[in-house]
Amino acid sequence: MSDTVSVETVASAIDALRDQVPLVQSLTNIVSANFLTNVLLAAGASNAHIDNVHEAGGFAAVAGGVLVNLGTPDDGTAEAFLIAAEAARTAGTPWVLDPVGVGGLPWRSGIAVDLLRFHPSAIRGNASEIIALAGLGGDTRGVDSASDSADAVPAALSLLKHADAVSASGPVDYIVGRDGGGDVRGIRVSGGSALLPRVTSTGCSLGGLVAAYLAVTPTALDGLVAAHTHVAVASEIAEENASGPGSFAVAYLDALYNVNADTIRSRARIESFDLPAGVQN
Amino acid sequence: MSDTVSVETVASAIDALRDQVPLVQSLTNIVSANFLTNVLLAAGASNAHIDNVHEAGGFAAVAGGVLVNLGTPDDGTAEAFLIAAEAARTAGTPWVLDPVGVGGLPWRSGIAVDLLRFHPSAIRGNASEIIALAGLGGDTRGVDSASDSADAVPAALSLLKHADAVSASGPVDYIVGRDGGGDVRGIRVSGGSALLPRVTSTGCSLGGLVAAYLAVTPTALDGLVAAHTHVAVASEIAEENASGPGSFAVAYLDALYNVNADTIRSRARIESFDLPAGVQN
Amino acid sequence: MSDTVSVETVASAIDALRDQVPLVQSLTNIVSANFLTNVLLAAGASNAHIDNVHEAGGFAAVAGGVLVNLGTPDDGTAEAFLIAAEAARTAGTPWVLDPVGVGGLPWRSGIAVDLLRFHPSAIRGNASEIIALAGLGGDTRGVDSASDSADAVPAALSLLKHADAVSASGPVDYIVGRDGGGDVRGIRVSGGSALLPRVTSTGCSLGGLVAAYLAVTPTALDGLVAAHTHVAVASEIAEENASGPGSFAVAYLDALYNVNADTIRSRARIESFDLPAGVQN
Repeated sequence: MSDTVSVETVASAIDALRDQVPLVQSLTNIVSANFLTNVLLAAGASNAHIDNVHEAGGFAAVAGGVLVNLGTPDDGTAEAFLIAAEAARTAGTPWVLDPVGVGGLPWRSGIAVDLLRFHPSAIRGNASEIIALAGLGGDTRGVDSASDSADAVPAALSLLKHADAVSASGPVDYIVGRDGGGDVRGIRVSGGSALLPRVTSTGCSLGGLVAAYLAVTPTALDGLVAAHTHVAVASEIAEENASGPGSFAVAYLDALYNVNADTIRSRARIESFDLPAGVQN
Repeated sequence: MSDTVSVETVASAIDALRDQVPLVQSLTNIVSANFLTNVLLAAGASNAHIDNVHEAGGFAAVAGGVLVNLGTPDDGTAEAFLIAAEAARTAGTPWVLDPVGVGGLPWRSGIAVDLLRFHPSAIRGNASEIIALAGLGGDTRGVDSASDSADAVPAALSLLKHADAVSASGPVDYIVGRDGGGDVRGIRVSGGSALLPRVTSTGCSLGGLVAAYLAVTPTALDGLVAAHTHVAVASEIAEENASGPGSFAVAYLDALYNVNADTIRSRARIESFDLPAGVQN
Repeated sequence: MSDTVSVETVASAIDALRDQVPLVQSLTNIVSANFLTNVLLAAGASNAHIDNVHEAGGFAAVAGGVLVNLGTPDDGTAEAFLIAAEAARTAGTPWVLDPVGVGGLPWRSGIAVDLLRFHPSAIRGNASEIIALAGLGGDTRGVDSASDSADAVPAALSLLKHADAVSASGPVDYIVGRDGGGDVRGIRVSGGSALLPRVTSTGCSLGGLVAAYLAVTPTALDGLVAAHTHVAVASEIAEENASGPGSFAVAYLDALYNVNADTIRSRARIESFDLPAGVQN
């Protein structure tokens, strides 16, 4: 049974997204750039992919939210990641870190550590990336997850010294962060589809959607829960209309567009979960 | 009611496109590279994305048309833009400037000004980009348009000192340029779909299609009108088969492929419009 | 009539692909990066696009297969190509060279020659690229093929001094390579669809699929035959469900996912062909 308070928070957030049409700045990888933008446009936001060193900082100061995704860095974009993150931090623009491939790949792991200095509003990754980023070990298999997302909860909690909220994606998504009163909460979002991992960039584009929701929600925790729920509900609907990953991707974009506050109320599966003993509130 | 002369010009142009299969060279952004190539292949042209400094100039000399799109420049591609534009100008290859994000982003705005030295055959942008490029003010909101496209007509006319023809995309597209006799004309193309701005790269890929049509039409004005009309008719058909932006994008590629001269004759909505007093012919 | 031995080899290979889910490392162009990854995920493999100089070598040593595709090189990725190819060669990771645009474009032609030093397991290109790479002349028209693929057989055979197996794509695909006993064989795969060349990156993604199959087959010849056959069967099925290139691309991803060993047995068209006199076995 869903947490009614959380479901209404998400329903309000999706209305706010469509009202405000936040402009995201994405610094994302070349695999996901097109699909991520289509996901944002379908969901009700807007996107500008600005990842050069000359413009990344200035734009981060005026964007509604910024996504830094480590998928396919080179020397130029890696520098732009840091410029954008610092400018976002200085200007108070919410920003999201998606630590793609961190752990198995040492160069980008160093970039990720550097980025943590600028205190991302939210970190979104799969379980193995969250575990790796927290320095608890774990290994990454490309951009796929080798761990169960529930296993990443201790790592996600430890990352709250660097970020306001953290999520680990998987068949069930685990999200931790501080609520409006400053207390740490744990929220689990179910739903989704077994076809999601068969379409590339569904995770990366979720990171973009988090950046969009951060622009319209009071806390990073709310933004993460809203983005994960929008995706879980839309992908569940999409699977009903799919005969493989190609038709699933098409139906997913349609569903992101057609899902509204009432769809969220009837379909969302959001639950609080108990945090491990010893979590400081 | 459509301008019969213009409709027949477009009908001839689409036949010429399918007969000649022009090869476009695109220097476009990483968000649009895939979709733009699919749009060109579906419409009946061909594309090679060649944007490195070593090959951009040599290829521009032999391509049928060149697109320079400022969407996601870095230092390397920015240099390749200038190399390709100069080589196209020298060789007489028609080329298109798509000034994505010009106005709000100072670095690329400087690149755009540099590019104007090489006299693009056609400039295609949204209204705010055209206004910004003309130096008439206006501001850009990412890659979306903040202005009505009719408002961009004075700016488009002022850009005719740098280019043979200019278009401002919007719910209705406004196009100005010199006809075969050297007189400046204004042409308006209606149609399209409200779902077009919900799919990324529909504007950028229109720029690529302009480059393809420039290879097979006698004037840049004809090429712009043909490309805008092909897109307007195809997107109108696509909307009839869409239940959201995902299925719209699929139906749009199908429609670009299936539209022919007869579809143009039955569906195109092309009208001349009066130019402001004082336009020099 | 199909070669029963070869069909059973392909049927075993597709089962092995689904069992082992090999991880490909792609260094591919920005036009194909998204579609190629979706093709690999739909077919049953996994992909990580890692093309920076810092990580390309380390990952090539642990990946199941590596694809080096010359589609949109710049100075950085060109250096990464060489690093990845050398690391793959040293570690014994099978790797594929896709010589996009070689012949007409001198800079990347030099890169391709440098890459041959690291002995690709397989080379996959269209006929004009294979002919150009073999130094037999021919010219490339962008990334499309200007030659009949049968014409490329002598060039493909001459490339066997640099690679274990070579394929030339076309309406019929011609593949040559050494079998398990060390004898050179020629195999022809028919099927496919006239809509394949109307969707960009279908050739590039075939190169990625070759890298995936190389990870699970005993010889590079088997890997090439399996990848070409999977694509030929899937595209034939997709065409039955398509009304243009947009819906074809969607149905193609669905079909890559749904095709299994039994579909291969009922649909594959694989034949041996006689090699020219004088081929050394």
